[in-house]
Amino acid sequence: MKRTLGIVGAGQLGRMMALAAAPLNIRCLFLDPASDACASAYGEHIVAPYDDVEAALTLAAQADAATFEFENVPPTTLAAIAAEIPAYPTAAALATSRDRWVEKSLFQRLNIPIPAIAKIDSQADLDQAVVNIGLPAVVKTRTMGYDGKGQKVLRTPADTAGTFAELGSVPLIMEGFVDFDEEVSCVAVRAVDGDMRYYDLVLNEHQSGILYRSQPLAAHLLQAQAQDYVQRVMAELDYVGVMAFEFFRKGEQLMANEIAPRVHNSGHWTIEGATTSQFENHVRAVCGLPLGDTQTRGHVVMLNVFGAHPDVTALWRLPGVHWHDYDKTDRPGRKLGHVTITATTTDELAERETAAAACLRNVRG
Amino acid sequence: MKRTLGIVGAGQLGRMMALAAAPLNIRCLFLDPASDACASAYGEHIVAPYDDVEAALTLAAQADAATFEFENVPPTTLAAIAAEIPAYPTAAALATSRDRWVEKSLFQRLNIPIPAIAKIDSQADLDQAVVNIGLPAVVKTRTMGYDGKGQKVLRTPADTAGTFAELGSVPLIMEGFVDFDEEVSCVAVRAVDGDMRYYDLVLNEHQSGILYRSQPLAAHLLQAQAQDYVQRVMAELDYVGVMAFEFFRKGEQLMANEIAPRVHNSGHWTIEGATTSQFENHVRAVCGLPLGDTQTRGHVVMLNVFGAHPDVTALWRLPGVHWHDYDKTDRPGRKLGHVTITATTTDELAERETAAAACLRNVRG
Repeated sequence: MKRTLGIVGAGQLGRMMALAAAPLNIRCLFLDPASDACASAYGEHIVAPYDDVEAALTLAAQADAATFEFENVPPTTLAAIAAEIPAYPTAAALATSRDRWVEKSLFQRLNIPIPAIAKIDSQADLDQAVVNIGLPAVVKTRTMGYDGKGQKVLRTPADTAGTFAELGSVPLIMEGFVDFDEEVSCVAVRAVDGDMRYYDLVLNEHQSGILYRSQPLAAHLLQAQAQDYVQRVMAELDYVGVMAFEFFRKGEQLMANEIAPRVHNSGHWTIEGATTSQFENHVRAVCGLPLGDTQTRGHVVMLNVFGAHPDVTALWRLPGVHWHDYDKTDRPGRKLGHVTITATTTDELAERETAAAACLRNVRG
Repeated sequence: MKRTLGIVGAGQLGRMMALAAAPLNIRCLFLDPASDACASAYGEHIVAPYDDVEAALTLAAQADAATFEFENVPPTTLAAIAAEIPAYPTAAALATSRDRWVEKSLFQRLNIPIPAIAKIDSQADLDQAVVNIGLPAVVKTRTMGYDGKGQKVLRTPADTAGTFAELGSVPLIMEGFVDFDEEVSCVAVRAVDGDMRYYDLVLNEHQSGILYRSQPLAAHLLQAQAQDYVQRVMAELDYVGVMAFEFFRKGEQLMANEIAPRVHNSGHWTIEGATTSQFENHVRAVCGLPLGDTQTRGHVVMLNVFGAHPDVTALWRLPGVHWHDYDKTDRPGRKLGHVTITATTTDELAERETAAAACLRNVRG
C-alpha cells in the first residue's frame, strides 16, 4: 500500500525523511515557501508560505498523515492540517516545546530536575530574578531562539542592565547557571499505540552555540534515567514521532535542558549508526506503523559541517566516512551538512575522526 | 558542487541510485518510457522511449555524467549520450555482456575457466554441439535473456529436437552442464582512475530461475580468486562503475557464468550491510569521484520478494529487518522488493531470517 506523508518544511530534515520513507513505499509531499528547498527534489512540493491555510488544506487533501520539520509551524496551518488527517507531533506538543517557560514548567510538574527558573516580563522581573537565582545565569527568549540566538549569559550585575530591551522586550525566562560536566541528549520515538524506543544516549559538543559533535555512548550509566525522563514527557504529551531530549549531566544526575519535538541533529548519526534511523522511525511513527529497532551498530560519531564546505574529495577518500551534503551555499554559521564516521573499534573510530575533522573548514556565525 | 547524473531506466535500481546519490549532492535525471516508473519521484524524469535519440540528447544536455540501469540500452541512445558526456559502463562493456557468446569468448581469452561452449546458428549447429559437449547442457539465446527466460535445459537427446525454432530461431549459445556446488557472485566497482574495490563474495540461491537469497560470505577461501577474475575483465574492458560477476563454484575452483554491467540484485544487501552501498559506489564511480569502503558490516542476508507482497506489517515488527518496497503491483514472478536482514551474530541472523522468511508470500512466474 502506497502512503503519502505531508511534511511542513523541505529542508535537510525533510530530505532525510523522504530518503528514509522511499523503501517503505511512502512518498513525501512538502509545503515550503522556497522553491529550491533541499528536499524538493525528493517529493512533490507545494511552494507557499507556511501560514497559507489554503496550501495547508491542499497538502492535507493529498496526504494520509502529516508531520513538521520544525516547531514554529504557524498554529493556523497546524490546525487546518490536523482537522483533516493525523498530524504529529500534536499542537500541544509543539506549543510546549515552543515556549521555554511552558516546557520547563512541564518538566517541573513531572519531577524532572531542572535549573532554577524565573519568568521575566520586564526589566524589574529580571532584576528580581538575579537576586533570587544569583549569577551567573542565562536569559533566553521564551520562544523562537535556537543555536545560541536570542539568549544572553549574565555573569556580573553590570550585564543585567538593559538586557530586557536588548533581547527585544519580549517574554523571557531566566535559568540558573548549571556547572555541568557535559551535555547529552536522548533521541527517542513513540508510536501511535504508545510503544516507545530509545537510541543510545548521545554526548553533544558545541562550538559557539552550534552543535559540532555528537557521539552515542554505549551502555551509559544514565541511559535508564534519561529514558525515564523522556518517557514521562512523551506519555504526558501523548507524543507521536521522534523527540530529542537534551540534558545537562552533572555527576550521576541529569538535569533537563530542552526538548525538540522532531528529528534532531544529535540523531543524524543513526542513518549509518543504528539499525533503524531516527528518520525512518519518525516516518513510521507518524504514519501509524510499527517502530524499528534502535540498536547502535558498531562505533559511530557525527561531526556537523557549517559555514563553509569541507574538502569533499578528501572526505570521500576516507574509509567509514559518510558525507551528507544539504545542497546549500556557504554562509558563516549555516549548517551545510554533516559527516558520520563508523568503525569497528574505538581506536579505528578515533583515527578516522581525526582524519575527517582535518577535512572540515567550519566557519562560525 | 552540485552534479546531475543521467540514468537510462527509472526502475528500482535507478531509485536506489537516486537515494544513494542525494547525500553526495548528486541529483538524478531519468529517461524511462513509463511515467509512473518507481524512481521517477526521486529525480527529474524525461518520459520517452529508450530509443528516442532526441530525448537522449536532452538528458545529455542536462547531465554531467550518465549511466544505465540495464544492459539492453539501444546502441543509438548510448552513442548519442556518450558523444556528449561521460557515460559508463561504455558501449564496449555493455555489448560484451549483452551477447553471451562475446562474453564467454572474453572469459576464455582472459584464461578464466568457463563451461564447454558452442555457438549455435541453426538446428544443425545445435545437434552437432550436443555431440561435442554432451548432455545435459543448457541452450540460451545469445542476447536478451534474464531470470531464466530465453533458455532451455537439454537433458536427453529428445529435448534437442526443434529447440532452435522453440527459442525463436535466433543466435544461441550452448553451455555444458556444470555440476556445481553453489553459485556465488562478486560485486565490484572500478573508478575512472582504475581504482578497484570488491565486496565480499556472495552466495546466491535461486527459485525457478529467480534469485531468492543472497548472503555475503566473510573471508571466503575463493575471495582472492574471484577478485582476480573480476579484475581481469574490468581492466580489459576499461570498465567504470559497479559490475557483478556470477560464478559457479565447484570445490575450490570458480567457473565464470556471466557478468552484469550494473548494480545487481546480489548486491542489494550492501545498503545496510556494507560501509558504502553498491549504489553509492556506482554513482561515485560514474561521476568520477573516489570510491568508498566496501567492508561488510556485521552479519547480513538478503531475501528477494516476488509475485506477491509479504506481510509488511509483520516484517516491520522484526528487529534488524529492512523491507524495501519497489512500488509495483503484484504479478507472478515479478520482483516487488527485497528484505535485508542484519544481525551481530550468525545465530541472531539465522533466527531473524527464519522470522522474516515466514512473512513472505512469494509467487513464482
